Amino acid sequence: MAWTMPESERAFHEELDAENINPLWVMHANPPERPKLAPYVWRWERMRELAMHAGDLPSLRGQGFRRALTMRNPGLKNPQAGATKTMSAAVQIVWPGEIAEAHRHTAAAIRFVIEGEGAFTVQGGERFRMEEGDLTLTPSWVWHDHNNPQDKPVIWLDCLDAPMVGYLDAMFQEPYPEDVQPVTKPNGYTNAAIGNGLMRANLKDVVGGTLPITYKWNDAYGALLGYGEEDPHDGVVMEYANPVTGGHSMPTLALKLQRLAPNSHGEAHRHTSSVVYHAAKGEGYSVIDGKRLDWAKGDTFVLPSWAVHEHGTDSSDDAVLFSMSDLPLVEAMGLYREEARPRQEVTGAIG
Amino acid sequence: MAWTMPESERAFHEELDAENINPLWVMHANPPERPKLAPYVWRWERMRELAMHAGDLPSLRGQGFRRALTMRNPGLKNPQAGATKTMSAAVQIVWPGEIAEAHRHTAAAIRFVIEGEGAFTVQGGERFRMEEGDLTLTPSWVWHDHNNPQDKPVIWLDCLDAPMVGYLDAMFQEPYPEDVQPVTKPNGYTNAAIGNGLMRANLKDVVGGTLPITYKWNDAYGALLGYGEEDPHDGVVMEYANPVTGGHSMPTLALKLQRLAPNSHGEAHRHTSSVVYHAAKGEGYSVIDGKRLDWAKGDTFVLPSWAVHEHGTDSSDDAVLFSMSDLPLVEAMGLYREEARPRQEVTGAIG
Amino acid sequence: MAWTMPESERAFHEELDAENINPLWVMHANPPERPKLAPYVWRWERMRELAMHAGDLPSLRGQGFRRALTMRNPGLKNPQAGATKTMSAAVQIVWPGEIAEAHRHTAAAIRFVIEGEGAFTVQGGERFRMEEGDLTLTPSWVWHDHNNPQDKPVIWLDCLDAPMVGYLDAMFQEPYPEDVQPVTKPNGYTNAAIGNGLMRANLKDVVGGTLPITYKWNDAYGALLGYGEEDPHDGVVMEYANPVTGGHSMPTLALKLQRLAPNSHGEAHRHTSSVVYHAAKGEGYSVIDGKRLDWAKGDTFVLPSWAVHEHGTDSSDDAVLFSMSDLPLVEAMGLYREEARPRQEVTGAIG
Amino acid sequence: MAWTMPESERAFHEELDAENINPLWVMHANPPERPKLAPYVWRWERMRELAMHAGDLPSLRGQGFRRALTMRNPGLKNPQAGATKTMSAAVQIVWPGEIAEAHRHTAAAIRFVIEGEGAFTVQGGERFRMEEGDLTLTPSWVWHDHNNPQDKPVIWLDCLDAPMVGYLDAMFQEPYPEDVQPVTKPNGYTNAAIGNGLMRANLKDVVGGTLPITYKWNDAYGALLGYGEEDPHDGVVMEYANPVTGGHSMPTLALKLQRLAPNSHGEAHRHTSSVVYHAAKGEGYSVIDGKRLDWAKGDTFVLPSWAVHEHGTDSSDDAVLFSMSDLPLVEAMGLYREEARPRQEVTGAIG
Repeated sequence: MAWTMPESERAFHEELDAENINPLWVMHANPPERPKLAPYVWRWERMRELAMHAGDLPSLRGQGFRRALTMRNPGLKNPQAGATKTMSAAVQIVWPGEIAEAHRHTAAAIRFVIEGEGAFTVQGGERFRMEEGDLTLTPSWVWHDHNNPQDKPVIWLDCLDAPMVGYLDAMFQEPYPEDVQPVTKPNGYTNAAIGNGLMRANLKDVVGGTLPITYKWNDAYGALLGYGEEDPHDGVVMEYANPVTGGHSMPTLALKLQRLAPNSHGEAHRHTSSVVYHAAKGEGYSVIDGKRLDWAKGDTFVLPSWAVHEHGTDSSDDAVLFSMSDLPLVEAMGLYREEARPRQEVTGAIG
Repeated sequence: MAWTMPESERAFHEELDAENINPLWVMHANPPERPKLAPYVWRWERMRELAMHAGDLPSLRGQGFRRALTMRNPGLKNPQAGATKTMSAAVQIVWPGEIAEAHRHTAAAIRFVIEGEGAFTVQGGERFRMEEGDLTLTPSWVWHDHNNPQDKPVIWLDCLDAPMVGYLDAMFQEPYPEDVQPVTKPNGYTNAAIGNGLMRANLKDVVGGTLPITYKWNDAYGALLGYGEEDPHDGVVMEYANPVTGGHSMPTLALKLQRLAPNSHGEAHRHTSSVVYHAAKGEGYSVIDGKRLDWAKGDTFVLPSWAVHEHGTDSSDDAVLFSMSDLPLVEAMGLYREEARPRQEVTGAIG
Repeated sequence: MAWTMPESERAFHEELDAENINPLWVMHANPPERPKLAPYVWRWERMRELAMHAGDLPSLRGQGFRRALTMRNPGLKNPQAGATKTMSAAVQIVWPGEIAEAHRHTAAAIRFVIEGEGAFTVQGGERFRMEEGDLTLTPSWVWHDHNNPQDKPVIWLDCLDAPMVGYLDAMFQEPYPEDVQPVTKPNGYTNAAIGNGLMRANLKDVVGGTLPITYKWNDAYGALLGYGEEDPHDGVVMEYANPVTGGHSMPTLALKLQRLAPNSHGEAHRHTSSVVYHAAKGEGYSVIDGKRLDWAKGDTFVLPSWAVHEHGTDSSDDAVLFSMSDLPLVEAMGLYREEARPRQEVTGAIG
Repeated sequence: MAWTMPESERAFHEELDAENINPLWVMHANPPERPKLAPYVWRWERMRELAMHAGDLPSLRGQGFRRALTMRNPGLKNPQAGATKTMSAAVQIVWPGEIAEAHRHTAAAIRFVIEGEGAFTVQGGERFRMEEGDLTLTPSWVWHDHNNPQDKPVIWLDCLDAPMVGYLDAMFQEPYPEDVQPVTKPNGYTNAAIGNGLMRANLKDVVGGTLPITYKWNDAYGALLGYGEEDPHDGVVMEYANPVTGGHSMPTLALKLQRLAPNSHGEAHRHTSSVVYHAAKGEGYSVIDGKRLDWAKGDTFVLPSWAVHEHGTDSSDDAVLFSMSDLPLVEAMGLYREEARPRQEVTGAIG
């Protein structure tokens, strides 16, 4: 629709503006430019360097703070933006001997360990010890504190649905009365209550359909190797299962792991959900809306909704991407679409 | 947490910023001021005046545009903001003889007639004729065009979940190949297929769990009178039923009607969902976070999430509020909270 | 599989039998004849005569009994059989001035009035007054008593899922401490709480997903006339809607009404659910597994699972069948199948 | 209600009987005695002896039959009865070199290996190899054939929901065109597709919400040991998880494993679901309606719905019961009840 406001109607438009009214036809005829989620990559080498710096900042010592470097999507032109409009992602370092104080919030969180081992999160009175490649879920409103009793730092990817929760103005946060919560359950209790996926105890403590569980790297990566069936777009891809509901990993987030075979290149497609990818193993590349983004272990990057994309690796080793998306929300609203696309011509690079 | 950045760490913070990184501890210690949804009212007298003006704008004649005056929440400081962060609301006028061209979009819409009768929306090949107080649903991705064959304008409240859909970057829009779609079903077909709520045909054309149906004012208001049981906060309140799922009116929107008895005043509460209210009958007032907002038939106003509120009327007649909220989305994310509150002291006014 | 037990193995088979063991191969090779649900009709003229007799039996006076004539399927060869294996059906007469005492049971019941008006069932403290053609639901474990304050008898079809409940050994029954329960709600309360299907109050008293509601004949039959779209097999057919769940009328029973146009004949099909039909208006016929069954208003007949059937009427008036089936249970077990079949040749008659 | 038919009404009752009608008041006043599910035990020692005999019956050689000894509940007084009214249970022997021909049926089946190893069931083109203590699911309508390529017999407990399916007259059975179906998938494919419970591939071949999967004994028993939390009635008890739905193991059957600690005795309760128990490890006893039933590994016994029961063991070793119940059906109908009871006095023995 081509439409231009005649000079004679300007006064009326100013009247509308004064009443906090937008005329719909103007927005339709001249859709405003809006900040747009950018495909973008945060490189591990640099993030690690900055994290190590943050890990020992004098001003933070003994404060109980989370030393988290929160990725800000540059496309959104918003100083408080997350990695995408719906999800935050941070590289968090837990310094040797450090405690990140206990609190809870309505935002749900996940942690994927990038480097180190032996740090643990206490959730619902249970210690979740984590090693490289492990994933731990922190459902909404569960008390949690972090502790690193080892002598080396532990670094993990720390992601939340906080932007969604903030979008709905439903963020609540509460500090625990003490620095740390008491440990009341044996290690591994929650994973045991679901027979690590296979058996089911009577689950009385289910939190909104999500349990605070840990998926070990060996189990998750091993499952990809064991299954082996290739998706045309995503290599061998599996979702971290929600054992309670049979649905997505969390009510707001879909968490997946995908393995690209050595020297493989998937087909292109696009879908209505945005994704935070994190390279968990090896190296490869993604082509996003015609731009090539090379990635290697530890890198984190963002795929906007409906951007055409394909993944591949030129390595003689396999490559594994961990990913988190807002798919459950898109589906709950009945808005999921997916479309296969022809192989893209590469016209530039990202990062 | 009180924390101030020491001068010695400034360089590091600038380094982070250059990498599109926000240090989490800064955001926690010094939470930034963000634009905040404002309680606000658009008065009918003024909206009607502006709508009548918009109805006959020379530049729009014969263009097939929607003459919709979209309410922009002043608190959000965003020139494209909707009435709330999640919902848009507009006063739309359909001029005598006018056709608003057929199209469809992934955003779902609802229409509540404020003035006039005899205009109709064609949806899925069926004419939905509307009169004052009637509500019509337009589910996601259903073709629809509007037509006013009468000699008087028809004005309705036109609301969409478009901001949510845009938030997820999942808005698709498509014009119909012709100005209008053909009418292939008898009037009243869809409402008849559900026995007006009581009986159920084999529903083959269900669109994402929502049917394009009309709720007549007499049925809806009559249902409030027939039921009569008072909620402590909201008078007699009922939701427009989704006959297909037994759940909310639409997957993204909860639509309700509430009747305040003459000279009544409800108790205060707050909840995590934002609401667009529209006064459908009579006059009354709402107290929102301590500020009194007087309203009368035709006015439209906004309640932010978690704002304490109570409704009442000093009139010897009853008053009826139609409302639309983002409750289904809040529930899908497991974020609904509600809390009774003590009666508020009124310390100011809104509007 | 053709298999005959050799004489040499007889002793072994006797050994098995003594241990309460059946050899599977014998049952497979020589499937035993089992009693089989018969298509069968109970004629209204005769049922009415017997009901009137039962209505004034001296031995029952003042006892608070239900004067119900329970139909026993002759095919099942079981003196306690219901109308089908899963459902019971009875013609019940409520004599003028009579009270059928209050009780409750885990079996769910429905009542469809055949003759008379003004009797009422009290359920959950509310009077449900019934007239000819009205349907009332009594969900599992709801207190109910019947009362006929008029001077003419009222006769209704009284059906339960009791055989299913008995099959699972889950029948519980409890007499109310008094003859009748107190009336605590206004007439029409429950139907009002669901806006007669269209609006929804906050339903605190929902009993297992089913409300004790009444569907008036004029509403139900009117819905068929209003909808008008013909199913190839069943004329215009609609299910009595469950407003709470969007699913079947009751968790165990699907209740439908179907209108056969004057001089119409539907196509044949079969499905895995058994049905109790009751002619609610006019006259017609059904062809069941090649046998013709003529029926007229008031008659009740049975269709076995997977029996081929077609319905028609030679009358210049329309005909209406009310029906009840075990479809929800069949679906819950994942066992529903349906198959269109060619028109049957009629080779005999039923009833 | 005490009521006796007066002689004067006898003729009327005979009239009713002739019309296939039961007067409800007679059934209420004089409830007929009905056959009733009996608690009963089939001893392993004897079953094994009979199975070995059946395994080599001359008349069955090369016929492709299933050599299954189907337990018949003596309480039901029905020559075709299953172990309970709703479930069948058999001891099936697969003779060395034998093939039980491929077929499928609408009844769902499960197999729990009692003795031997190396036999396999082919389902949906995949070999499921089974060892002692393993459980394999065969969902409704999945092709399956059994094969024992080892030189020793394999014996398993073979249970179906066939009585339920027969109750609804919804049993369909179909032989495969060949003796065996082709193997098209690698061993372990289906378990791999669900990451053995923890990860989830895109499941395109889900059969009515149930996958043909195997639960290894070591995984299942190990899960009990790993979890360790005691239920007051059932020791450490877990359900074999349905990874697809988060619900019961199968749409019609709940499958559980429970571990009784050495020298333990659980509290008494009763519930509305009937159970087939099979002793998978050790020895113990159950007290059912006051009668003591001692059991040891390999024994199979039956608990009627609503029978009071408690489990224990006097052994210094633990004992494990595998069980199968009709709980999902009871729940689907809204009929589940459970009640704690005082410890029973033992007044007799079963078996």
